[in-house]
Amino acid sequence: MPTKSMQDLLIEELRDIYHAEKQIEKALPKMGKAASSEELRQAFETHRDQTHGQIERLEQAFEKLDTRTRGKRCEAMEGLIDETRETMEMGLAPEVLDAALIGCAQKIEHYEIASYGTLQAYAAALGQQEVADLLQQTLDEEKETDRKLNELAVGNINKRAIQAGGQQKAA
Amino acid sequence: MPTKSMQDLLIEELRDIYHAEKQIEKALPKMGKAASSEELRQAFETHRDQTHGQIERLEQAFEKLDTRTRGKRCEAMEGLIDETRETMEMGLAPEVLDAALIGCAQKIEHYEIASYGTLQAYAAALGQQEVADLLQQTLDEEKETDRKLNELAVGNINKRAIQAGGQQKAA
Repeated sequence: MPTKSMQDLLIEELRDIYHAEKQIEKALPKMGKAASSEELRQAFETHRDQTHGQIERLEQAFEKLDTRTRGKRCEAMEGLIDETRETMEMGLAPEVLDAALIGCAQKIEHYEIASYGTLQAYAAALGQQEVADLLQQTLDEEKETDRKLNELAVGNINKRAIQAGGQQKAA
Repeated sequence: MPTKSMQDLLIEELRDIYHAEKQIEKALPKMGKAASSEELRQAFETHRDQTHGQIERLEQAFEKLDTRTRGKRCEAMEGLIDETRETMEMGLAPEVLDAALIGCAQKIEHYEIASYGTLQAYAAALGQQEVADLLQQTLDEEKETDRKLNELAVGNINKRAIQAGGQQKAA
């Protein structure tokens, strides 16, 4: 069996993130439903629409590489989404759950940031500039989403979580 | 059952990353063994020593919070490490495996960056400044490790992977 090349690795990893994105697309509405902050609910909704566009970009990348669009089970994202589900069932006060959901979403974002960063570098090194550009667009969006989630957390969600949680703890 | 507070969430999440770090400590020597680049092998070795110090910092954080040091199964890290193991068994050319191992390590780093970033914000918002400082030290280290891995990939490992993989692909 011949050993696999960098092009093979690029395609394998595109399949991994394609499966991951499909899972994220399904998880985001549940995260939105669990959020009590309207701002956070909207952030999850916006990111869901964005995820849909990111999936389309991956489909374009497969096409440009003359490869069939196909996902490959992404166990890391399964683990991240299982942890998100467990967090929802932890019995947190609603405002504390908002803070926790941001943490879960940022872990998901960071998986994507690492993955798209790596994929973009592979595609660029392989001279697949159009694919690299598609991946860079998504990478920029993921970083921006992570920044916005941070702003929500540090802005007021963490503070509200402490006030609410503190009262309930004292009760 | 009373709902859980932000302090409870901080402790739960510290237990998650404590378990994750223990898994990383075990995985890094295997990643080092699988690497063919001497520079990369050394980077994994250095990070293993660092991980040991990061585990000690977490133990200090538990102590400062008057809580027993305890891990909680981190499914996300289990998934990340399973994917790393699968990557090692993918049949990649050795130089291509080096590029792939950097990708795996950066996904692990990004889980840690998201987790420590969140934990640091929780601790600071709760007025647990000493704990926040410990977490910030580790966060800085993780970001620096991610930066170094990037440098290795873009510096020469990705290029070498393409040259090697290309030859083997043509064979």
